[in-house]
Amino acid sequence: MFDVQKIRADFPILSREVNGKPLTYLDNGASAQKPQVVIDAITRAYSHEYANVHRGLHYLSNLATDHYESTRAKVARFLNAGHEDEILYTSGTTEGINLVSYAWGMENLRAGDEIVLSILEHHANIVPWHFLRERLGVVLTWVDCAPDGSLDPQAVIDAMGAKTKLVAVTQMSNVTGTRVDVKTICHAARERGIATLVDGSQAAVHGPVDVQDIGCDFYPITGHKLYGPSGSGAIYIRAERQAQMRPFMGGGDMIDTVGRETITWAKPPLKFEAGTPGIVQTIGFGVALDYLMGLGMDQIAAYEAGLAAYATERLATLNWLSVQGTTADKGAIFSFTMEGAHAHDISTVLDKRGVAVRAGSHCAMPLMEHLGQSATCRASFAMYNTRDEVDTLVSALELCRDLFG
Amino acid sequence: MFDVQKIRADFPILSREVNGKPLTYLDNGASAQKPQVVIDAITRAYSHEYANVHRGLHYLSNLATDHYESTRAKVARFLNAGHEDEILYTSGTTEGINLVSYAWGMENLRAGDEIVLSILEHHANIVPWHFLRERLGVVLTWVDCAPDGSLDPQAVIDAMGAKTKLVAVTQMSNVTGTRVDVKTICHAARERGIATLVDGSQAAVHGPVDVQDIGCDFYPITGHKLYGPSGSGAIYIRAERQAQMRPFMGGGDMIDTVGRETITWAKPPLKFEAGTPGIVQTIGFGVALDYLMGLGMDQIAAYEAGLAAYATERLATLNWLSVQGTTADKGAIFSFTMEGAHAHDISTVLDKRGVAVRAGSHCAMPLMEHLGQSATCRASFAMYNTRDEVDTLVSALELCRDLFG
Repeated sequence: MFDVQKIRADFPILSREVNGKPLTYLDNGASAQKPQVVIDAITRAYSHEYANVHRGLHYLSNLATDHYESTRAKVARFLNAGHEDEILYTSGTTEGINLVSYAWGMENLRAGDEIVLSILEHHANIVPWHFLRERLGVVLTWVDCAPDGSLDPQAVIDAMGAKTKLVAVTQMSNVTGTRVDVKTICHAARERGIATLVDGSQAAVHGPVDVQDIGCDFYPITGHKLYGPSGSGAIYIRAERQAQMRPFMGGGDMIDTVGRETITWAKPPLKFEAGTPGIVQTIGFGVALDYLMGLGMDQIAAYEAGLAAYATERLATLNWLSVQGTTADKGAIFSFTMEGAHAHDISTVLDKRGVAVRAGSHCAMPLMEHLGQSATCRASFAMYNTRDEVDTLVSALELCRDLFG
Repeated sequence: MFDVQKIRADFPILSREVNGKPLTYLDNGASAQKPQVVIDAITRAYSHEYANVHRGLHYLSNLATDHYESTRAKVARFLNAGHEDEILYTSGTTEGINLVSYAWGMENLRAGDEIVLSILEHHANIVPWHFLRERLGVVLTWVDCAPDGSLDPQAVIDAMGAKTKLVAVTQMSNVTGTRVDVKTICHAARERGIATLVDGSQAAVHGPVDVQDIGCDFYPITGHKLYGPSGSGAIYIRAERQAQMRPFMGGGDMIDTVGRETITWAKPPLKFEAGTPGIVQTIGFGVALDYLMGLGMDQIAAYEAGLAAYATERLATLNWLSVQGTTADKGAIFSFTMEGAHAHDISTVLDKRGVAVRAGSHCAMPLMEHLGQSATCRASFAMYNTRDEVDTLVSALELCRDLFG
C-alpha cells in the first residue's frame, strides 16, 4: 500500500517552509530530494566507515569497498541488467553519455556516419554527439515529435539508414513528460546492427525499467534524480558494446600495468572507472535504490499516474494556460506558458507561495525551438507530491493570472 | 597555536576502534577523514537546503547555487589563483588531469610532440598522457629520480626540447613524500612556451600553495584528500590556457546555444562544467577548505614537519626496515619494505593492531619499477596524526619483525 504521507515523512526537507509557506517542491525533474535513510548512510559512512576503496587491505578500506561495490548489484537489479559487470558507476547521466561518446563513439564512428536523435533530447544527449560531429564529421539526423509531443517510433526507424551507427533517444522527455516507445526503436536498431542509447535520466525515476526487454546497448541513469546523492549515477552498457570501447578517463584502478611506453587495462567495469570514485555518493545511491525498490517501482508508477491525471485535469481548467505535451500516458512533468507573463516572472510569483518550479529552456533548446517557445515554466512531480500540492500550484497560477493577465 | 588533540576531536571516526584497538589511520595519502563541520554541512544541505543549481529561480535553487558557487572563491584563495574563473570544479585530480588531456592536449598536440614526465608520477598523471601517445602519436619523455627519491629540476629542464609541449610533474610523490621544486621547472618551461601541469593532489594537503608563484598552467587538487567529501575537487587553469581549450564533457550548463547543426559554448568556468555537478560535495569541499585555512596551512606544514622528522628518526632505528625516499624535506609519507615479509602481509598484521596503511604499487608502477619494488607498505600521515601514533606504528612493525623476521 503506497502511503504518500508516510513517504513524505521520510524526507526532512519536505517539512520546511519557503518564504513563509510550506515548501511545494515541484522541481524534481532537475533534482529530487533525499530520504533520511540516504542522509543517514552518508553520515554513517563519513563518521564511522570511511576509507578509500579497492586498493586497501585494512579494515575500513575493506568495509568501504564492500558498501561501495554493493551498489552495483542494486543498480543491476533496478534495471534488470543481465550481469552487474554491465553496470558502470558515473557521476550522472551527463558523464554516462560522454563516456559513450568518447569511449565508444570516437573509436567506432567515422566521417559520414550518422547518429539518429529525437528532438525531445536533453542537452546531455545532444552535446556529446555534437562533439563527434565537430571532431569526426559525424552527421546528426533529427526526428521531430508530433504537436502533442509524441514521438512516432516508426519515424525513428525510418530515419535509420545504411550509415546510421547509433540511435540516441530519451525514454521520457524532461520538458513534456512524453514517453517514448524505446523498445520498438531498439529492437529495430538491433536487427540492423545499429547501437542504441536510451537516456533513462527521467524515465527510470517514474517506473520500472528492464534494459534487457528494451534491448538497448547503453542506458544511463542519474542518482540525484533517483533520490540519491548529488554526483552519483550509473550506466548500463551491454557486454558486447563494452568490448568495443576504449577506456574513457585514465588513472588509478582502471589499469592492469603501466610502463613507460606500454599500458594495459583492467577488466570491465573497472576499465571504465578511473581514480578514486565517488565512494560515499555511490553508497548513498545504493541506499536510495533500496528505498525505491522497497516501495516498488510499479507502485510508484501507479501513484504518479493518478497524480499526473489529476494535475492534467486541474491544469486543463485554466484555459489561459498553455501546456506543452498532451499525450495521455505522459509522466507527471508539466511545462507551460501563460500569455502576457514571462516564465521567469511566473516562477518568481510561485516561489513567493512556496512553490518551486523551474523556468527556462530546460536544457532542451532544439525541442523548445520546435515547440516555438523560448522559455517555459516546468512543474515536475515526484512520488512524494500530493493532490493538495497540485491544488497549491493551481492556486498560485491563478494568482499569476490575476497579476499578469 | 596548533592543538592536535583539539583537531582530532573534530574528526568523529578517529575515536573509533578497529579490531579492538584504537584506530591509527595512516592511509591519508589515499584519502583523508572528514571533520564534523564537513559532515554537518552535507547533512544540512540535504536536509534543509537542497536543489539543483544555476538553472532554477526558486529559493532553494538560489540558496544551493550560492553555497555551491562560494567554494570557487575559497579554492582560488587556497591556491592563490589570480581570479576565481581560473578554478574549475572536478570530481578530483584524476578528472582534472583527464580534462587537460582531452580538452587541451587533444586540441594542441600532434604526432611527435613531446610530454615530459617525472618517474615520480601517480597513474593519474601518466595514463591520460598514454592516451595521447596512443591516439595522437605523442612521445612521452621520462625523467628519473635519484636513489634518495629526489628529482633534480635541472634534469627536467634538460629534458625539454624543441618538440616539448607539456611538462607534467607532481609537487609531492604519493609514494615517497619527495617534494619537487616545481617553481624552477615551471619558470623554465614558461620561458620556452611549454605548458606545465603540476599534480597538487598530495602537496596541497601538506602546506601552502601559490600557483602564481609556481607559475604553472594547470594545478589539480583532490577534495577527498583535503578532508572534503569524496567526489569533490578542482583544478586551477590559467586563463591563457583555458582560451586554448575545447570543452571536455558536453551537456547542460556548459553551452550558450544548442541547435541541430550548430552549438556555442558558455564562458569559462561553466564551459568546462557539464551537467548537474557534484553540488553537495562541492559545498562540503568549501567547508573543508575553510577549516584548513582557519587552522593555517603554514601551521599544518610546521606540525607535519615535526611529525615527519619524528617518524623518520623512529623508523631509522628499525635497521631491518627499508624506507623508500630519504630526502630531508620529504612529506610525512613513508613507503617501506621488510625482508622476508610481503607488503600485504605486513599491512594485515598492522591492521590487527588498528593501524591502517596501504600496500601495493600505490598507482605508481613506473616509480615502483625504478625503485626495484613490486609492492611496498605505505604509512601516510595527516595533520591529525600524533607522535603516539608513530610509536604505535613502530611497535606494530616490531611485531611484524617478530612474526616474519
